[in-house]
Amino acid sequence: MKLETKTAHFTNPLYLESGRILEPYEIIYETYGELNADKSNVIVICHALSGSHHAAGRYGNEAKPGWWDNFIGDGKTIDTQKYFVICTNNIGSCFGSTSPMSPNYPSDEPYRFKFPVLTISDIVKAQRILFDSLGIHHVRAVIGGSMGGMQAICYAIEYPRFADIIIPMATTAYTRPWAIASNKIAMEAIRHDPSFKNGNYEKEDLIANGLPGLAIGRMAGLIAYVGPNSMNEKFGRNYAHTDGLYELFGRFEVERYLEYNAYNFPKIFDPLSYLYICKTMNIFNAARGSDKLEDALAKIKCQLHLISFSDDVLFFPEEMEEIYTTMKELGKDNVSYTMIESTHGHDSFLVELDKFKDYIVDILEDRVG
Amino acid sequence: MKLETKTAHFTNPLYLESGRILEPYEIIYETYGELNADKSNVIVICHALSGSHHAAGRYGNEAKPGWWDNFIGDGKTIDTQKYFVICTNNIGSCFGSTSPMSPNYPSDEPYRFKFPVLTISDIVKAQRILFDSLGIHHVRAVIGGSMGGMQAICYAIEYPRFADIIIPMATTAYTRPWAIASNKIAMEAIRHDPSFKNGNYEKEDLIANGLPGLAIGRMAGLIAYVGPNSMNEKFGRNYAHTDGLYELFGRFEVERYLEYNAYNFPKIFDPLSYLYICKTMNIFNAARGSDKLEDALAKIKCQLHLISFSDDVLFFPEEMEEIYTTMKELGKDNVSYTMIESTHGHDSFLVELDKFKDYIVDILEDRVG
Repeated sequence: MKLETKTAHFTNPLYLESGRILEPYEIIYETYGELNADKSNVIVICHALSGSHHAAGRYGNEAKPGWWDNFIGDGKTIDTQKYFVICTNNIGSCFGSTSPMSPNYPSDEPYRFKFPVLTISDIVKAQRILFDSLGIHHVRAVIGGSMGGMQAICYAIEYPRFADIIIPMATTAYTRPWAIASNKIAMEAIRHDPSFKNGNYEKEDLIANGLPGLAIGRMAGLIAYVGPNSMNEKFGRNYAHTDGLYELFGRFEVERYLEYNAYNFPKIFDPLSYLYICKTMNIFNAARGSDKLEDALAKIKCQLHLISFSDDVLFFPEEMEEIYTTMKELGKDNVSYTMIESTHGHDSFLVELDKFKDYIVDILEDRVG
Repeated sequence: MKLETKTAHFTNPLYLESGRILEPYEIIYETYGELNADKSNVIVICHALSGSHHAAGRYGNEAKPGWWDNFIGDGKTIDTQKYFVICTNNIGSCFGSTSPMSPNYPSDEPYRFKFPVLTISDIVKAQRILFDSLGIHHVRAVIGGSMGGMQAICYAIEYPRFADIIIPMATTAYTRPWAIASNKIAMEAIRHDPSFKNGNYEKEDLIANGLPGLAIGRMAGLIAYVGPNSMNEKFGRNYAHTDGLYELFGRFEVERYLEYNAYNFPKIFDPLSYLYICKTMNIFNAARGSDKLEDALAKIKCQLHLISFSDDVLFFPEEMEEIYTTMKELGKDNVSYTMIESTHGHDSFLVELDKFKDYIVDILEDRVG
């Protein structure tokens, strides 16, 4: 598989939903496979909150490959012998695209809290500008889970002729208070952490010392991603064999899992990006700018294939089903809805590929009505 | 209604499950109504994590009455013209019973982290010692929700002839990793808060300045108590009219609710007590000391009436149903199980009284088989 990582620079202003302007900005992105002559083999992958443009393949001596590597590659579900796959790092995220820690041009100082709040529409708009600059004005498919699914829905509504097929997974048409509340824990934990220094931290300090507030926020996220059933299966009531049951800080296995994953997180993720991305997800509402959700969904012209997971306790299956039902009530035939039975909660779109990969192939081969 | 608040002092050692000893210890408790001549009209109420012995009535000019005041009182569900009701403050809690901030006798210094980890059995054992000291060796009923429900189950198993009727609500026979994970957020947020000073805080400082770590932990609790459906009903996507949608810290109503309730919490609750009580709940397992849950439940001789709430996402209805099913499989007839339809999540046992109060009266009047 041919893997390329590039950064595109844009000096034209990006007009944001908020009325603010991002100028200049950069988007880092990866491509897998090769663009065919008539540019008809493009698939766009959209990443989730803590994801990046590194969706597949492996750099030099990297220990772990990209986050959807089992899904994208030669001979895999998204077959890079056939498709040219693009995944961008969302603006606002901290893996190389313009973010709160980028210099606030013309100064050399980072934006920090001067960074504008972005919406899913803004992120998608920036991606479209990148694709235009590559001469790609139409794609075969857009696929994404969670916040990536929000982007997919946004493509479907705002750029009705851009993609033939759009596949949002484990997502919602508008963020409910339950998900907002989970993000709230993260936002408050970050804000109140003294190492955050009200946004005036030095990156090096965080890498050296961590940021417990971000770790605690990440725990709230992890809990919602894994969910109760998966926790019962994975951890049960197993207790760390090194710890005493009556030790105040003795740990159940689920606690060790949370500690391990959460306390490593601030080494790889930026707290200001986390705050801004939480806000972006919280204010996501596919119906914004329309009188009601029906009006927004009425615009969709692509084949929309919605996939939810039975055990998702962040974005519940009912939220995906509502999109389907609403479109059906509008008399639209260009929509399907599938709930995959899974015990892996919200994370299923990342870890339960075996349960939906054949279905994705069928969709891409036009075998799903 | 006659309301009395008293504190009992015990100088005999309390032998704990951990092998440690609490000596001396105090229990503060309230009573409502009057004990009849043959002491046959006693009902024990057990409180939840952040509750106290102040379950009903109102002190002098108190703004809010006790936490179950709609439930307990003259002519109410638990009719204090008929019953003599006792509610103790659990040892380990911070409302007057012996807790981590009590002096570690013979020193005058608080225990802090030298306080022993308590189990639900320890808490119940201490209550039994109090009741014995009052000459009460048998009661009509024990009723409690959440952590109070754990105590109720513990009474049923460990003191099979103590109560005629036991009513655990919104609880579990053993805490699952999902609830442990929610407590983990609280425990980590408290530990990492610099104002906590590794447990060496001064109470006055917390009252003056708050403890954001405890507030953030409380948020994790509140989210689990309220649940997604109730949040949809109560808050929807309403946004604070004072805040801008594209303001990074602009708030949805659900965020305002969480802020308001969480940031007030450290003014009334002690962080060390919170840590210890989380631990107590985490290690609750009614089957401990038995080979399996069946063996523990086989001991139950009282009438056990289990009540769950359809929308409880902290202790799911399945967890209560499992107790019922297991007892039925043992061939026991002294058990009933009812799931109340409610959209108020785990908190239903506190706020949806109308949905179960008649049922409780029927149980107390022996009209439920």
